[in-house]
Amino acid sequence: MIKIVFLGTGGGFPSKDRNTSSILIQREGEMILFDCGEGTQQQMMRAKTGMMKLHSIFLSHFHGDHILGLPGLLQTLAFLGQMEEIAVYGPFGIDEIMDAFSKLGMHKLKFPLKVVELSPGDIVRYDGYSVKAVRADHDRPALGFVLEEDERPGRFLRDRAVELGVAPGPAFSKLHSGQSITLPNKTVVSSDMVVGPKRPGLKIAYSGDTRETDLFFYEAQDADAVIHEATFTSDMKENADEWAHSTAKGVAKLAKKYNVRQLILTHISQRFSEDVAPVLDEAKTEFENTMIAQDLMEIDLKNRDE
Amino acid sequence: MIKIVFLGTGGGFPSKDRNTSSILIQREGEMILFDCGEGTQQQMMRAKTGMMKLHSIFLSHFHGDHILGLPGLLQTLAFLGQMEEIAVYGPFGIDEIMDAFSKLGMHKLKFPLKVVELSPGDIVRYDGYSVKAVRADHDRPALGFVLEEDERPGRFLRDRAVELGVAPGPAFSKLHSGQSITLPNKTVVSSDMVVGPKRPGLKIAYSGDTRETDLFFYEAQDADAVIHEATFTSDMKENADEWAHSTAKGVAKLAKKYNVRQLILTHISQRFSEDVAPVLDEAKTEFENTMIAQDLMEIDLKNRDE
Repeated sequence: MIKIVFLGTGGGFPSKDRNTSSILIQREGEMILFDCGEGTQQQMMRAKTGMMKLHSIFLSHFHGDHILGLPGLLQTLAFLGQMEEIAVYGPFGIDEIMDAFSKLGMHKLKFPLKVVELSPGDIVRYDGYSVKAVRADHDRPALGFVLEEDERPGRFLRDRAVELGVAPGPAFSKLHSGQSITLPNKTVVSSDMVVGPKRPGLKIAYSGDTRETDLFFYEAQDADAVIHEATFTSDMKENADEWAHSTAKGVAKLAKKYNVRQLILTHISQRFSEDVAPVLDEAKTEFENTMIAQDLMEIDLKNRDE
Repeated sequence: MIKIVFLGTGGGFPSKDRNTSSILIQREGEMILFDCGEGTQQQMMRAKTGMMKLHSIFLSHFHGDHILGLPGLLQTLAFLGQMEEIAVYGPFGIDEIMDAFSKLGMHKLKFPLKVVELSPGDIVRYDGYSVKAVRADHDRPALGFVLEEDERPGRFLRDRAVELGVAPGPAFSKLHSGQSITLPNKTVVSSDMVVGPKRPGLKIAYSGDTRETDLFFYEAQDADAVIHEATFTSDMKENADEWAHSTAKGVAKLAKKYNVRQLILTHISQRFSEDVAPVLDEAKTEFENTMIAQDLMEIDLKNRDE
């Protein structure tokens, strides 16, 4: 299971109810962040996520509303005794940004800080999952990210095993784990005879700031959750193009085309502080499985077959 | 009248209920900030202070918890169409900090940004009040600030004027505004004969981060409000000394010694998230007129004679 915690869901600047961009992913005790807008650390405290399990921070691009929470968060990790490495990933320009951050009066960090520039197509591998950087279409170098769990083993076909004469017990486990066994009658039963096809893990895509593109959604195809910016509604399509942002309607169309399971719209403009219905409504006319992110909203994502 | 709005009252890092340091002063439609920790702009939105009347930001020193809200705030002012100059004041090192901020992916600001390094003793004058930089005793260059309104005219001594033969009416206003008048019998009545001594304006002192010192309180003498850090209680006096912070008890003793009207303790450590009583209690044993700042608390400060 993966838990998505929406720490900041606002647009270019915060409103009283929406912080700037940050999405936390929790998986088997580990945590990674997508973007780190101003106020992220306090939102983690409010969401009671803890901090010490965080190991990686992926920055989509270097507008302030996606990065200005990073120096404070790193500083607080240091205060709290962080010793393990923290890795910060981002597109071209990350070295200059991290260099500027290092001049902002931070106490010396006692933990290693790894800074890595990513290009579209680069993949960061972890134990059991990976994060792929994908191209975004913004007004400066920008990435989206696709987190994908490793494939899970196929289901154990118990009836088929019994039919082949395998006795329930340790032999079942051996077969399910990929090994072969030899029956008393010398017949060899191999794993692939009694285990179904491998099953995909969970897949989550995060757009960062971008015009809506087929390219991003091609990478996000079949995702269990796509977290996508929707700064504008379609009546402001020209503004969206000019500022290199998306419209809710445009995003929802692509979500449907690329068979997304759940679309979650974020980067909600202050324009919709009082009423977010225009954003949700126009998206839902294209793709029913759409929701609007809210600050401190949490989603528990399970595999389709669970 | 001056309104003090406490935007951030936490210590070195935020807690779920306390943002990092920022104090807003509102006076006759103008606004200035003392410090600008991460999250300041969102706190301004929550406090509904508006933003466009802000013209000056005073930074006490360059630890992250006092400055990391500045780039986001400047960026948002730009988004909101700010055209008037914003002045940022701070101690030695401010040029390097503002240079680092300018590299953090900000859109181009369309308003002039004035950056001024202050030394202890420097005074910034405004229409009707001034802000004086005073020495703080922290682990790096650090300032406190004393805001003082200009003296107000003395009271008009109506009974004395009548006694001298002045007829109520326009002559009263003339005399009160500093002019002399000549009575029908050719007697000259000058202003000083019917106007009492000038009265002090409001005085507010903000400590920034500092060990408690006589020097700061000498500058804050007789202040209507002293907003002072109290990161530690006196049982942790050694830590306070080591980290160059204050104890609540030490601050309260000096507030009493220097005849402060109201002491407001801030920069409250996460240690006291659940219960701030230890801080308040030890201060009150020394100086009764002590309170603890809270985020979004507002204080309307009136002259003693009003």
